[in-house]
Amino acid sequence: MPSKRQNGRLLNSSLLCDVGNTNFSFSDGKKISVEHFNISSLDERVYYISVNHYWEKRLEGEENWVNLRSYIDFEKYYDSMGIDRIMCCEAVEDGVVVDAGSAITVDVIKRGHHEGGFIVPGFKAMRKCFKDISPRLDVSFNFDLDLARIPRNTEDALSYGAIAPLVSHIASLSKALPVILTGGDAQILLPLIPNAVIDTELVFKGMKKIIQGQA
Amino acid sequence: MPSKRQNGRLLNSSLLCDVGNTNFSFSDGKKISVEHFNISSLDERVYYISVNHYWEKRLEGEENWVNLRSYIDFEKYYDSMGIDRIMCCEAVEDGVVVDAGSAITVDVIKRGHHEGGFIVPGFKAMRKCFKDISPRLDVSFNFDLDLARIPRNTEDALSYGAIAPLVSHIASLSKALPVILTGGDAQILLPLIPNAVIDTELVFKGMKKIIQGQA
Repeated sequence: MPSKRQNGRLLNSSLLCDVGNTNFSFSDGKKISVEHFNISSLDERVYYISVNHYWEKRLEGEENWVNLRSYIDFEKYYDSMGIDRIMCCEAVEDGVVVDAGSAITVDVIKRGHHEGGFIVPGFKAMRKCFKDISPRLDVSFNFDLDLARIPRNTEDALSYGAIAPLVSHIASLSKALPVILTGGDAQILLPLIPNAVIDTELVFKGMKKIIQGQA
Repeated sequence: MPSKRQNGRLLNSSLLCDVGNTNFSFSDGKKISVEHFNISSLDERVYYISVNHYWEKRLEGEENWVNLRSYIDFEKYYDSMGIDRIMCCEAVEDGVVVDAGSAITVDVIKRGHHEGGFIVPGFKAMRKCFKDISPRLDVSFNFDLDLARIPRNTEDALSYGAIAPLVSHIASLSKALPVILTGGDAQILLPLIPNAVIDTELVFKGMKKIIQGQA
């Protein structure tokens, strides 16, 4: 980690990057496919996290790429918890963090303490799961359904099954806590969870907090 | 449908059969794989339902096989609802019926009226779904976990995700209604749902009710 002074300066000018299995996502909004990414295209300092083992190993040899993994207090979380999920939790002092992507992770944070969390399949995976069970269950989800009514057709029965238990469980866990949504499917959940807000920058906010904590 | 008198006699002596995609399940407890089933092995009357289109068509030519599909009042349910699920609902006057198989169907019945229902993946399908999302999520479920605690490891986070939202949603729908569990994974859900009971004969009870209603 660069020195305190260096760090303050760098934080303003340097990039943050979340390396996934599909994309490099940068704090300036750029997204580059892992297949087309060229390390030498960037010579500025990049603070990064990676759930992608191949790229994490490759980036370790690069002087200007700083892996934030070693700055995380894993005792606050658990060993096998995804580093992107940890960063989203780091960004929140009190709240229920819902990251809706290929999987949907739900984490409860109280006074900066990670109480725990759970995982359900993302909506795309859930649709495929129904389809794999039976071709009769191969239908698109209806995200506009009224969750106050118990469905009376297959499309709604599957949509309700994918949404209602999750949404009501989040509500029961959140109580007075705010619900912060992030990830590609956050928009789907927004109208379904009262008082929820979307924060697309959550992972970068967590990364900044980790960097500042070290500065 | 045989006459009233015939029917009373036949109900005691004749067989009921639930034809699935994998097995012929009989009310006398026998299960025969659809691949090994030989129609001519049975010459007694058999009342049956079938979700298996191939076998439903084949059995229609058999004099001693009586398809119960035409005796169902589909207006009480909906067209695309599985006939096995309908039969389980027929068996119940007031209750939440949970059929835990390859999919888990949850139906609410009040005073013999089907209020509606929803569908989630069965536990086996859910495990495969997690595995398909990421090899990191390929873990066995822990069905003994304490649902009052939010998990702090991957195995429990996935198990909790597969169980807790479903179980708490069933509880919120059932309120004063009893919960009746059936299907291959009913035993898994039994300790997780307060006041739930298992009824492995539910589908046959519904079939008997339909037959008696016609007698």
